[in-house]
Amino acid sequence: MILLCNDDGFNAEGLRALRKELLALDDVMIVAPETEQSAMGHAITLNQPLKVRKVEEEGEFIGYAVNGTPADCVKLAITVLLDEPPKLVVSGINLGGNLGICALYSGTVSAATEAMVMGVPSIAVSLDTYENPDFIPAAKFARKFIPQLLKKGLPDGVVLNINVPPVPESEFVGVAITRQGKSRVIEEFDRREDPRGRTYYWLAGEMLFEETEEGADCVMIAKKYISIAPIHFDLTHYPSIDKLKDWKIEL
Amino acid sequence: MILLCNDDGFNAEGLRALRKELLALDDVMIVAPETEQSAMGHAITLNQPLKVRKVEEEGEFIGYAVNGTPADCVKLAITVLLDEPPKLVVSGINLGGNLGICALYSGTVSAATEAMVMGVPSIAVSLDTYENPDFIPAAKFARKFIPQLLKKGLPDGVVLNINVPPVPESEFVGVAITRQGKSRVIEEFDRREDPRGRTYYWLAGEMLFEETEEGADCVMIAKKYISIAPIHFDLTHYPSIDKLKDWKIEL
Repeated sequence: MILLCNDDGFNAEGLRALRKELLALDDVMIVAPETEQSAMGHAITLNQPLKVRKVEEEGEFIGYAVNGTPADCVKLAITVLLDEPPKLVVSGINLGGNLGICALYSGTVSAATEAMVMGVPSIAVSLDTYENPDFIPAAKFARKFIPQLLKKGLPDGVVLNINVPPVPESEFVGVAITRQGKSRVIEEFDRREDPRGRTYYWLAGEMLFEETEEGADCVMIAKKYISIAPIHFDLTHYPSIDKLKDWKIEL
Repeated sequence: MILLCNDDGFNAEGLRALRKELLALDDVMIVAPETEQSAMGHAITLNQPLKVRKVEEEGEFIGYAVNGTPADCVKLAITVLLDEPPKLVVSGINLGGNLGICALYSGTVSAATEAMVMGVPSIAVSLDTYENPDFIPAAKFARKFIPQLLKKGLPDGVVLNINVPPVPESEFVGVAITRQGKSRVIEEFDRREDPRGRTYYWLAGEMLFEETEEGADCVMIAKKYISIAPIHFDLTHYPSIDKLKDWKIEL
């Protein structure tokens, strides 16, 4: 059984396109947030209860909607809701790319990471557009890729962050194994006043592409490659350990 | 000027203990969440406006409370609220350790990471207890450590995740430069019924210490060392790149 999660919510088009394709491979169960949870990062819910809604459509049980974050959904699915662990967790298909530094903020990526923390192989899939998304090419790629993935087996503790360019299948140039790029959103905040004259801010800002190096996810996707970046959850910057030891920090 | 943030909220005791000590070093400004934001991970707020409350205490302007996440606070502070970038962001002092895999869920750590993404040096400080916390030894350590840190300069893109054992200063064994450990919380969900008979779940679970290796943050803190783990925000698992290239993934 394949478990689907996302951060755009149970009824999101990207999730449904993925389900439709993956049903050709295996049983599929959805455990996804009741409502949109974009940019939730690796948030988990400690201070309120999680409610679970069993979802049937056309008489068929297709999964559970949870009033929590993407990481909550994965925890609850694997710990409580599923009878047996899934063979794979697929998170997505996200509306919008999760490239460069933006992977940090992504609920989609965090759901996949959470699965791997719990020992379940996982991938995140995102479509790099917000406008007129067609999820079908990305969903079809997932369907073709997953059997290859299950046959090879993911390296221990490694999650794949897959980003798909928003083009028809025939225009995919290829599959590129990439690293997380350095591109990031440069923040801008719109400053406004509410009807009572109080200031508030909306986060805006545009992606700044800071590099041109082949091998960065954001570079390869711009060239219409499907980008697959292996990521992990050990945040340690190992080269700094010896440098910091030389500081001889005093108590 | 030093910018303080946290995930326990503007009025949290750990933040205030830190402010008191760091005022001996420099000007200090607080930009922190209005309410508790524990376990928010690297969430940012896209779909609602951020409101900012200017806080004065005893006639003194001490900072801003924001109705957002820790990462929101740092973004808003550096982009809009502060006249000039801080020389350092200090996030904490968190109530509870951010050790092992738990660093992923931590709003405290994410606030520090967000600062470094924006190019501002930063550290996260956490006190490894939830019971009868005495933040003063950790705050005093921060006061002593920060001048050493500013003199040496952090490696580019590296954040320090500092965890302090809950003991009096005289019982600190030393400072250990560590890596993120493998320990994690093993989930349990309490299953309950609401007054209308509907099921809900509360996340529970205990930290499972899976290792004994010297050098892991969770191991050294148990030995009463102050743990300093250098972390970064490049999630790429570089050793897997060549392995995945060998898969020769088909389109």
